[in-house]
This record gives sequence, structure tokens and C-alpha cells, in this order.
Amino acid sequence: MTPYQRLEARFRRLGQLDEAIRLLQWDAAAVMPEGGAGGRAEQLAALRLCAREILAAPEISDLLAAAETESATLDPWQRANLREMRRRWRHRTAVPAELVAARSRACSECEMVWRRARRAGDFSAVLPAFARVLSLTRELADAKAAALDLTPYEALIDQYEPGIAVATIDSLFADLVRFLPDLVEEVLARQKRLPAAKPLVGPFPAAAQRRAAMRLMERLGFDFAHGRLDESAHPFCGGTQDDVRITTRWNEEDFFQGLMAVLHETGHALYKRALPAAWRWQPVGAARGMAVHESQSLLLEMQVCRSRAFLGFALPLLQAELGEAAGAWDADRLYRRATNVGRTLIRVEADEVTYPLHVILRYRLERAMIAGDLEPRDLPDAWAEGLALLLAVRPGNDREGCLQDIHWYEGFWGYFPTYTLGALLAAQLFAAARREIPGLEDGIAAGRFAPLFDWLGARVHGRGSLLPTAELVESATGAPLGTASFERHLRARYLA
Amino acid sequence: MTPYQRLEARFRRLGQLDEAIRLLQWDAAAVMPEGGAGGRAEQLAALRLCAREILAAPEISDLLAAAETESATLDPWQRANLREMRRRWRHRTAVPAELVAARSRACSECEMVWRRARRAGDFSAVLPAFARVLSLTRELADAKAAALDLTPYEALIDQYEPGIAVATIDSLFADLVRFLPDLVEEVLARQKRLPAAKPLVGPFPAAAQRRAAMRLMERLGFDFAHGRLDESAHPFCGGTQDDVRITTRWNEEDFFQGLMAVLHETGHALYKRALPAAWRWQPVGAARGMAVHESQSLLLEMQVCRSRAFLGFALPLLQAELGEAAGAWDADRLYRRATNVGRTLIRVEADEVTYPLHVILRYRLERAMIAGDLEPRDLPDAWAEGLALLLAVRPGNDREGCLQDIHWYEGFWGYFPTYTLGALLAAQLFAAARREIPGLEDGIAAGRFAPLFDWLGARVHGRGSLLPTAELVESATGAPLGTASFERHLRARYLA
Repeated sequence: MTPYQRLEARFRRLGQLDEAIRLLQWDAAAVMPEGGAGGRAEQLAALRLCAREILAAPEISDLLAAAETESATLDPWQRANLREMRRRWRHRTAVPAELVAARSRACSECEMVWRRARRAGDFSAVLPAFARVLSLTRELADAKAAALDLTPYEALIDQYEPGIAVATIDSLFADLVRFLPDLVEEVLARQKRLPAAKPLVGPFPAAAQRRAAMRLMERLGFDFAHGRLDESAHPFCGGTQDDVRITTRWNEEDFFQGLMAVLHETGHALYKRALPAAWRWQPVGAARGMAVHESQSLLLEMQVCRSRAFLGFALPLLQAELGEAAGAWDADRLYRRATNVGRTLIRVEADEVTYPLHVILRYRLERAMIAGDLEPRDLPDAWAEGLALLLAVRPGNDREGCLQDIHWYEGFWGYFPTYTLGALLAAQLFAAARREIPGLEDGIAAGRFAPLFDWLGARVHGRGSLLPTAELVESATGAPLGTASFERHLRARYLA
Repeated sequence: MTPYQRLEARFRRLGQLDEAIRLLQWDAAAVMPEGGAGGRAEQLAALRLCAREILAAPEISDLLAAAETESATLDPWQRANLREMRRRWRHRTAVPAELVAARSRACSECEMVWRRARRAGDFSAVLPAFARVLSLTRELADAKAAALDLTPYEALIDQYEPGIAVATIDSLFADLVRFLPDLVEEVLARQKRLPAAKPLVGPFPAAAQRRAAMRLMERLGFDFAHGRLDESAHPFCGGTQDDVRITTRWNEEDFFQGLMAVLHETGHALYKRALPAAWRWQPVGAARGMAVHESQSLLLEMQVCRSRAFLGFALPLLQAELGEAAGAWDADRLYRRATNVGRTLIRVEADEVTYPLHVILRYRLERAMIAGDLEPRDLPDAWAEGLALLLAVRPGNDREGCLQDIHWYEGFWGYFPTYTLGALLAAQLFAAARREIPGLEDGIAAGRFAPLFDWLGARVHGRGSLLPTAELVESATGAPLGTASFERHLRARYLA
């Protein structure tokens, strides 16, 4: 076996361990009885330790170097695979094991304290644990920055979406800040002038919501021989390429939230299913990154499923499953519900127009904290002022302010930007698809989604991690990532 | 760290990997979509490979030797733990990796062919694959026999229930053959003289059966904060000590099968839950073996739940959940259903009186095949003749003969005896419990099960693998394993 082939064998096993981890995480969220939590943490830690030992074994370093010297003999997929192996190896070996362990413990502890602090709306209760997480995260960022030749904050982003420079994000977010606050103003003013939207009044039994959601999933191309739909506290898409597990929550008063969560996760699921099967378990066969992943869920949820065309298609199916409560609806009523805009304090309740402003606030704050320019104790005030500036609202307390998101407290730093990068990419991809697929929107209105997913399969899904993100975007849409398609989409949907 | 402590750290991780494997197996049987099967096989293989590497690492051998020289410094639990570590290590390292891999492939292939051959009732279709499994199993048995200083067949048994000599099994089974065929005759004659039993006529909706089963499980002490009840093609008990997963099948025409399967698996589950928590993930904290495990499921199903006392307690609860169909039942009708005896050809449909004869047939045949005294091609005839001798019935084809059980085809040799050893031990334990717990049966009739499970917890469950099986039996019941309690139980229930 060549050094490259030997690496493939090691990474294949890593990929399989990773799948086992993801299935146990799904289990913990979807079906595990609460009493299993202690043991589950230990099982996952044991699996992660096995994975770390495989990747950090001394011979991996030699194999990588040897494979790189003979990379001319590799085909493009293999070369890309080798590049991704090196990237993963750098991330894994950049940080001393003691720091990884200390940070992992600090994050677990902080997350527990955060749960209580959030309930009490008391940031000071979590401040010491939070400061410790930040301090260890800064150490981690410094170590990874040195190994990856990036700035510390970029090294954090690189864990989630590799190869997007902070300068690019700065420029994209500056564009958004230029037009979005005014656009929000205009949209809200227009919304006020419209006749009041008729509400969608339930109750909607969970079983009926589930049936409706499953029928729509199937129409979109989700294959239940290769996946499941379950319930969990927070919707997510887990599992593996041939066994995708998505979850949602059913609210019997409001079916719309649960359904939109299902459609969002279905976007993630269809990406996962269509990754290059020949490269399963290899780094190059994995999804490109969290921004690209989010682009696929947002493309389906925001671009497709909240459109008038889709809602017109979905209406009779919803009426058939949801029964009497849905009898008097028309597509316009659904569309009003799907496109309602408001200045909420809470990110996860935000609409697609205001959402980027929530993300930009967090991006600014976490960059400042990683750079040492913002002290943890000053976070609540900085949050309130930052939000007032961007969205003209101010949290009444820390619960609806800087305590609302779990990310920082459980150790996810550099993750927030991927939500908005995903939204921009979703709009840009959908605009390209509309140019290239004749009759795309009529097809959606008629429930024909195969042309769109074939197009996405060829340009995004089936390429896995073959291309760095920036190249993938250019190759799929003909242009670097920008804000123009997103802005056009918002103006067309909310102001036309 | 001392050598013993370093071993504990290794085995702790092994125990955690083993739990991950068991959860993924549960998932595959209970919730996985069929399209996930290929990937699941790979994930499990990767986990098993990690486990094998930990146990077969060269330093384990040195650590075992070093810990054994200082075993005088260990307490009895640690010493027993060390003994069990050595036993596992011997089993794992006795067999060359190539033989393990070849046998594993041969078993997977044979199992697939067997599924088709069984449907077609055609033993000749599976004969080549079966012969290969047998031949590799004989190699495996020889290798383990040398390493464990046992006979080849004993080495196979030792994988499932260590420390029960073939001479002991021979003597117990000879006892059974002495009285059981005549007893079956007597029981059937008596059953014929009784007025015809009134059937339990449904339909019984699966949801109602599930509710009834869950209420009974809770009354027996099953804690749903630490476990689940699901469905699978074959009932089993999986999961972990703090997260026990049992499964059953619901037959809407016949609730009794599904319910008894639940109660049987609940016996396994309560054993698992009550294993010594301080030794979780260590070999000494594991269940003693499959015969002891089966004794706990059979004690609950056969000794407790098929008794008139229990069925009287369960009746109103079943009536409350199963509704109208159950309205006219009385405890006697349930009891007749629970104690019906017949000469069936199929082991899994057999009652507790005839069941040991099915097991003894398989025990004789597998011993002969391992010894080389019976050729695979002669199995169908040997099966038919052996069954006629023991049970006075003869299969009409191989499907209801030697193709009925999956065990040999998927590589389980030496497993069958544990069913009947478990039945004997269940009767012996229950007889001891009756002697030592005043008013045991009145308690059962009143739905008080804690005294029984406290007793089992102290004598069996909480001891894990502290004692070798033979010592455990003597210490818990005051006598070596015998057939007397079992015979008394059958005579009392079926002939009194």
C-alpha cells in the first residue's frame, strides 16, 4: 500500500467512528431516557478518545508527508482528500491534549451553569465559568492559528467552514449593515399598511402534523428507507449518509413552526444523502462546511418553501392532513404567515430579514472577545448597545440578551457567521438555479423538485469537500459570495 | 498507577466501547431504516476493531502478568476483576486475527444464505456455507481450548457461561432425559382430561397492549427514566445498565405472546439494572453469563408471571387496558393460556415442559459436530431422529427441523445449553427465595415484588461476575445446580 492508501484506511475508520458518535448523539437527543445521560457522556468520550488516538498517532504525520511528496500521482479527488486529511490533522494536533481536556471540562461545566443562569436571567452567575471558557478558547485559537497560519479568530472559523477569510466576512457583513437596517424599516412600514393577516388557528394534533410533514418530505425527495423523522427539544439533522435522522418539535397550537423546522432540516438531509457515496468515510466525501450546510437548509426553507409557489402546492396536502382547522385557508394566508417580519429580541425566532443583524451582533462581540478587546463582564452592555444600533431594540434582561444562545457557553466560537454566510449562499445558489433551470418556479408550484435537486447535486452536494468553499461558490454560481442575490430576494419578497 | 490500575483504565474504555456497540445494535433492530444496514455493519466493525486493538495490545499481557504477581494487595472484587480480565484476554488473543476475520465473514455469508434456505426449506442450499462455518468454528474451538486448558466444546461454552464443565451439563441433561419424556406424556394426558380452555379472543390494539405491558413493567420495578420498551422482529434486551432497552412484538390477535416476551425481557432488564454500579465498565461488573442471565428472565416469566398468583394480580390491569375483549376473563382462563403444553416442532414456540428437550437435541448435535462425529450433511436426519427420540415428533421438512434456529448459521456454538441451565437455575433460585422470603407468593398476588428483587439483588444481581457460576449458584441457593427444583416446579404446576 502507498502512504496515501494507508492514510485512506486510517481515515475510513475515523469516518466510521464519527458516524457512530453522530448516531449516539441522535439517540441522546431523540430517544434516550434521561437516566442514560451520564453513561452516554462516557461512551462518547471513549469513542472520541479512540478517534483522537488514530489521528494523533505518530505515523500519521510521516504518512501525510510521504503522501504529499508523491501527490503528483494522485487524481484530483485523492489530492483534495489529502488536503482535507492534512487540515483535520492540523486542527487535531495543534492543541495539546491537556488543553483539549481542560476546555472540554470547562465547556461542560459552563453549559450546566448557563442553563440555570438563563432561567434566572442572571449573567453574573455564569460569568466566572464563561470567562474560563473564553480564556481557554483564546488559548486554543492561538495554538490553531500558529499551526494553520491564520489569525486566531480565523482559526476558530476554520473549524466550521474552512477557507473563508475574515476580510471576506467583514466585507459581506459591512454590505449587509449598509442596507439591511433601512430595509427592515421599509418592510415593517409596508407590512403595517397591509390588511391584518388572518391567523392559522388550531389545534393541530401532533400525529396529523407529522403525517403532513412526512408527505412533504417525500415529495421533496426524502427517502424513508434511508432516514427517519423524530422529535427532540431542538430540531436538528443527524445520522449518516445512508441513514439520515432529522428531528423537529410539534406545537399543537401552531403547526407552522414544526413544519418549517422539518423543511429546514430536510434541506440538510438531502445534502447529506447526496454527498459522493464513493468517498463516504473519507474527509473529501464530507459536507464542505457549516456555511454550505446551512445554505442547503436555508435554500429549501427560505427560498423554496416560504415561497408563494411552494405554499400553493403544499396547501391541499396540509388541508388533507390537518383537517377541519385548515379548511378555510388559502395560499395567501400561509404566505403571510411564512413572511411575517418583526423586530424580535431572540435570534431563533427571527425572520430571514432581521436574522443577519442578530448574527452580525454576535460576530462583532465574539471577535472582540477573542481579540481581548471586550471583557466578559462587559458583555451584557455591549450586547444591548450593539443590538440597539443594528435593530433598534434593546433586551429588558440578560435572558433575552446575551444568555439566549447556548453556543459560546458550550464552546462554539466562530460558528455564528456560518448562519448568515449560508443565507447569502442560499440566495445566490437559488438565483443561479433560476437562471439555469427553465420553469423552476412553475415546477415548484406543481411539486416537481427533482430539477432543482439534480442541479444542486451536480454543483454542490455531489462534490463533497472537493473544492475549497470559495471555489465551490464561484464554480456553482459563477461569482464569489456576495450580498446582491440576498438583497434582491428580500426586496422581491418583502417590498414588491 | 499500579499495573492493576492501568488495566482498569483500559478495560473501562473497553466497557464503554462495548456499550456503544450494544446501543448501535439496539438501534439497528428497533429504529434503523433498512437502508442503514450497510453502513451500520461498517460502524460496528470499526468499533470492534478498536476494542480488539485495546485488548490485544502487547502491554496488556505484561500488565496482566505484573498485576497477578501483586494480587495479594488486591481486595476480592479487584482479584475477581483481574481473573475476568485474564479470561477475556485469553479468549481474545487465543485466536489468530485472520481466523477471527475469516470466521466472521463466513458467518455473515452463511446467515444470509440461511435466510433464503430456511424460506425454501432447503438445507442443501446452505450446506456448503454451513460446513465452512463449522470447520472454522472447530479451528476456533481448538485454539481457545489450548489457551484456556479446556476441551474444544467447553471452550465454546466458556464464551457464554464460563466455568460450567461439560461433565456437569451431561449429568444435568441426563437427569432431565430420565424424567422429562414421561412427564410430558403425563402432562398431556392430564391436560386432555381437563375441560377445554376458553380462548382469549381479540383483537387487541398494539397501543393498548403496550400500555398494559408498561404498567406491569413499572409494577415489577422497571424504571422508564432508565429504559425503554420498543418493537423489533425478535424480542431482546439491549442497551446499558442505566439505559436498558427491551423490545417485543405485538400480535393484535394474541396479546399473550407479546406480553410474555415483555415480562421475559424485563427479567433480563432488572438483572442488568441491578449489576454493581461501582464496577460498571469493568469485567467483574458484568452479568455473570448467559445461563445466569436466562435464569433471571425465566425466573420472572416462568416462575413468577405464569403463576396463578401473578395472573390474578395482572387480570384487572389487563382488563383496564385491553377493554371489552378482556371483560369476561377470569384468572383461570389466563392461567390455562399460560400453562398450555404441546409437542411443537419449533423451539421458540415450546412451553417450559418440553423446551429442555429441544435444547438437549441441539446440545447433542452440536457436540457431535464439534467433535467431528457428525458430518454437516447428515444433520437433517440426525435432527429428525433425535427429536423423535426425545419428544416423539418428527419434522416434516428442514424448515421446521434443522433450519429453524439462526444460532449455528450465524456462528453461535455452545450457546444452546444456557437456555436450559437458565431454566434449572431459575427454578432453584425461586425455590430458595420461597424458603427465605415469608409470604412470597401472597406478595406476588398483591403485586409486591420488591422483596423478591431485593433478595435476587443481594444474591445474584449485585454480585456481577464476582463469583464463578458454580460458586454463585451454591452461595445463592445453598446447593450446586441440579434438576430437583425444576422437576418439583413442573410437577406442582402441571400435575398437581
